[in-house]
Amino acid sequence: MTTSSSRLARLTSYLPILDWGRRYGRADLTGDLIAAVIVTIMLIPQSLAYALLAGLPAEVGLYASILPLVFYAVFGTSRALAVGPVAVVSLMTASALAPLGLETIGDYTAAAAVLALVSGVILLAMGLLRLGVVANFLSHPVIAGFITASGILIAASQAKHILGIKAGGHTLPEILIEIGRQLPNVNWPTLVIGLIALAFLFWVRKGLAGVLKSAFGMSAQAASTTARVGPVFAVIGTTIAAWALELPGAGVAVVGQVPTGLPPLGLPTIDFGTLGALVVPAILISIIGYVESVSVAQTLAAKRKQRIEPNQELIALGAANISSGLSGGYPVTGGFARSVVNFDAGAETPAAGAFTAVGLLLAALLLTPLLFFLPKATLAATIIVAVLSLVDLSILTRAWGYSKADFAAVLVTILLTLGVGVEVGVAAGVLVSLALFVWKTSRPHVAEVGQVPGSQHFRNVLRHKVITDPAVLTLRIDESLYFANARRMEDLILARVHRNRDEIKHVILMCSAVNEVDLSALESLEAINQRLTDQGIELHLSEVKGPVMDRLKCSHFLDELSGQVFLSQYDAFVALIEREHAGGDKLSVA
Amino acid sequence: MTTSSSRLARLTSYLPILDWGRRYGRADLTGDLIAAVIVTIMLIPQSLAYALLAGLPAEVGLYASILPLVFYAVFGTSRALAVGPVAVVSLMTASALAPLGLETIGDYTAAAAVLALVSGVILLAMGLLRLGVVANFLSHPVIAGFITASGILIAASQAKHILGIKAGGHTLPEILIEIGRQLPNVNWPTLVIGLIALAFLFWVRKGLAGVLKSAFGMSAQAASTTARVGPVFAVIGTTIAAWALELPGAGVAVVGQVPTGLPPLGLPTIDFGTLGALVVPAILISIIGYVESVSVAQTLAAKRKQRIEPNQELIALGAANISSGLSGGYPVTGGFARSVVNFDAGAETPAAGAFTAVGLLLAALLLTPLLFFLPKATLAATIIVAVLSLVDLSILTRAWGYSKADFAAVLVTILLTLGVGVEVGVAAGVLVSLALFVWKTSRPHVAEVGQVPGSQHFRNVLRHKVITDPAVLTLRIDESLYFANARRMEDLILARVHRNRDEIKHVILMCSAVNEVDLSALESLEAINQRLTDQGIELHLSEVKGPVMDRLKCSHFLDELSGQVFLSQYDAFVALIEREHAGGDKLSVA
Repeated sequence: MTTSSSRLARLTSYLPILDWGRRYGRADLTGDLIAAVIVTIMLIPQSLAYALLAGLPAEVGLYASILPLVFYAVFGTSRALAVGPVAVVSLMTASALAPLGLETIGDYTAAAAVLALVSGVILLAMGLLRLGVVANFLSHPVIAGFITASGILIAASQAKHILGIKAGGHTLPEILIEIGRQLPNVNWPTLVIGLIALAFLFWVRKGLAGVLKSAFGMSAQAASTTARVGPVFAVIGTTIAAWALELPGAGVAVVGQVPTGLPPLGLPTIDFGTLGALVVPAILISIIGYVESVSVAQTLAAKRKQRIEPNQELIALGAANISSGLSGGYPVTGGFARSVVNFDAGAETPAAGAFTAVGLLLAALLLTPLLFFLPKATLAATIIVAVLSLVDLSILTRAWGYSKADFAAVLVTILLTLGVGVEVGVAAGVLVSLALFVWKTSRPHVAEVGQVPGSQHFRNVLRHKVITDPAVLTLRIDESLYFANARRMEDLILARVHRNRDEIKHVILMCSAVNEVDLSALESLEAINQRLTDQGIELHLSEVKGPVMDRLKCSHFLDELSGQVFLSQYDAFVALIEREHAGGDKLSVA
Repeated sequence: MTTSSSRLARLTSYLPILDWGRRYGRADLTGDLIAAVIVTIMLIPQSLAYALLAGLPAEVGLYASILPLVFYAVFGTSRALAVGPVAVVSLMTASALAPLGLETIGDYTAAAAVLALVSGVILLAMGLLRLGVVANFLSHPVIAGFITASGILIAASQAKHILGIKAGGHTLPEILIEIGRQLPNVNWPTLVIGLIALAFLFWVRKGLAGVLKSAFGMSAQAASTTARVGPVFAVIGTTIAAWALELPGAGVAVVGQVPTGLPPLGLPTIDFGTLGALVVPAILISIIGYVESVSVAQTLAAKRKQRIEPNQELIALGAANISSGLSGGYPVTGGFARSVVNFDAGAETPAAGAFTAVGLLLAALLLTPLLFFLPKATLAATIIVAVLSLVDLSILTRAWGYSKADFAAVLVTILLTLGVGVEVGVAAGVLVSLALFVWKTSRPHVAEVGQVPGSQHFRNVLRHKVITDPAVLTLRIDESLYFANARRMEDLILARVHRNRDEIKHVILMCSAVNEVDLSALESLEAINQRLTDQGIELHLSEVKGPVMDRLKCSHFLDELSGQVFLSQYDAFVALIEREHAGGDKLSVA
């Protein structure tokens, strides 16, 4: 019995649907269905628009919003995450495919599907190997900087659709120069449609909820959720206008023929060279997509006191991307705005996602002929309004005010993402963060400490009024001791001792902040011990932590140490003063 | 007056010769002259041999032992360091020049001189920018592994000269395979000369000092210093043998025609492509050379209670290498064995080095015709005996016993140095060390702590018998909080609280080991504070260090914190227990 129940528990951990599925009730169904309808209406224009952003045909966006949602529903642990094409990943897809120089649109969509497939395999492997922690190396400021820069880049890349011009470029300077050069060729009907759509969408975002509240007496939450379906009216309105006014004849670009039917199932075929070139972008897309998705999921789970399982999320996103790659889609992940709408609209379980998939499937089967006259400018406006909410340059001022190292990491990420590309930007952000961390740990803070009067607590002599003794020097080392700082520490301690070499009889290294002593640092400690012994000074340690003490016991250092290891700094101070003065008559308050 | 004396002090710090030169006396002169004679006799065969190892004509070794010694004497701060060609840097020179595919020996020596020049400029720049700390990123185990692997590689590369065969190869497997293939072509007279030289040199190293002590009544130090000139007898003996027995006719390779005269002064000319290819090797040669040199200098300075100035050492080595590059030499640095001999023979000031330079200059002017019949096998034997003393595989067992991370770094360094090359080996060693350090800090130790009875000291509940309270959970975080561990810490703390969520009223984070809180970690702390507040639990901090507290004050965190920041953990524990129980009746000893 125990075995079978533990086997079931294990199975449930890999297939969370077995857990919530068994307890699925009528109330859950109602909530999930309402949420699914709203998310479907929101997702149709978004999925078309993001496909456009990725440089793909519109239907690829629809295909990426069907099977991946079903697979996430089976494997995911978040009750509210809405999976599908998102802006940043679409930009990264475009940036991964552009340098391949693919000639036909068929090759391009095949490569996008392979990118989803490779990314899915990577996510799945990371999940099975419990490597979710790798994502932690992306610091919050680097992510914030990257998302902001991506938002700016995406908005800039869509400007050409609003202006009705053809312009290339992958970095912000390139895009702006291209737009500037093509500005004389602006298509005025397109610009009018684009500006109207932009203005309407901004109003939907800022003003519609207020109108719904005051005019229809809706609750604040219901109003803001309903306002989310606003963009579909821009789609309907501009499509009708384009059809009625025969705008394609006036040079307004429209979506055109979109194939009707089920997504194509099967393995996309590309050559090995292309596959190789997609691996690094797929890794970055996987990690960025995972980080975005898991932070949304965690925020929403916390609101309902639920928990998500990060490694299982990797598995779920992996399955979603593999299914996307096998059904003519491209890389997907959990979207922020969409998941919030799903949550606010009352989604109770991942089944809401599966119902949304049905909605998108119906759209792919029935609605595609209606999309012929949808102006690309409308889709571009949808993207611009969505991504501008991602742009938040306040991370720069926050980081500047808090820590220059964090600021440097954000600045590098933003500048390189805008100026060179998304992959270089995010990689440089991670490397700069790590390099600055290592650099800081190589130059640690060392404090001379004394006893806080009336307590057994020891603090920095420069910051607190404390008791010290000329014969007993206590130095608190504020860092793990390892190769990058060992020699520096050696110099620092010996130089400090040199200043009062005639008075000092004992040096105590207070190790409360030393979390690690590696072999290089051990050799430095041995050297310090030797040099102090040569000068007739004893070296003591205090407050050495368990794991560090275990490590030191593997060496001969403790046998060679001229002094003792004390449990607490107070014990050390009292014992050594006793020994030197038989009563501590020389104590001075610094 | 003050200005001019401080200007003088500054000048003296850049030109240490102004300091010791003013106080130079007769006793100094005697010591320096004796040391110079001994080092000269030792350096002549070494400089020829290391030039051979670097793939250069023999005279280049002599040239690299003249001007560089004079420049080091002017700028150096070590009283005993003997600069010149050394084994590891010669190997690195060979490894830097081999892939360039240079056709004439003239191009090859020009490239070697440029390598010295570039390396000198890099060292000088590092010194002026006070970047000596960069060398600290080479951990002791990585250096030990690298030197050991280089020693093996050098010894293997010289075997062909002992065997009298032609064999190429740059990695250990390549060299061994080549030797195996060429073994049938062994030149027997060469092998006999080589083996005799090897046996004699081993005996000189191990047994000669003992003979000198017992037979001539020398002191132990005098005997071991005198034994250092032993190799010159191998040179003289085998040269005479080769001349008398007409060994070149029997296929024994000899040094041959060595140009007589002063080193050629002037800028070596090479093309820009070659210059570009030399920059990375020059950086590695600079850092390795500096690390080797400065550790010898530091060891010797400590013995006489002197100090060296690491950044000025960079300047001095930079000047030495620039002068080497401008006088037909190749990269040089301070040699270990040579410096010890210099020190033991009584060198009092860097003037000993300048006198040695005069000795080498005389050798270049007068002795070169005598070197014609010097067998290359003798020089190879000199190298092999010298480098085998560098080989010390015990670093592997020491690292294994102390820390698996250190072991991994050594192993990677040794295997890649032997199997791929010196540059890859040392670079991989540094990267692996850093990656393992970062990985460890991303998975920190967290201890639940309690009060050690009868003290104000708090330790791990799992290791010590301590007092705890069910309402007050204290967690000591044994690492700086930064992006790579912030989210993990968040999960860990919340999971621990979840286990006793009905009893816990207060969580204290004891921050004695937290040396840094970056922006990502600050956001995690805010999240922890928010989640605990939602559960009706207060969050407190204790023992936050000055620098971390300064940082936290730059944010809103302290205003939002549900609890307090206590100076000491004891203060926090007492105050919170008081508040919960009005007297602490529920305390339990775990």
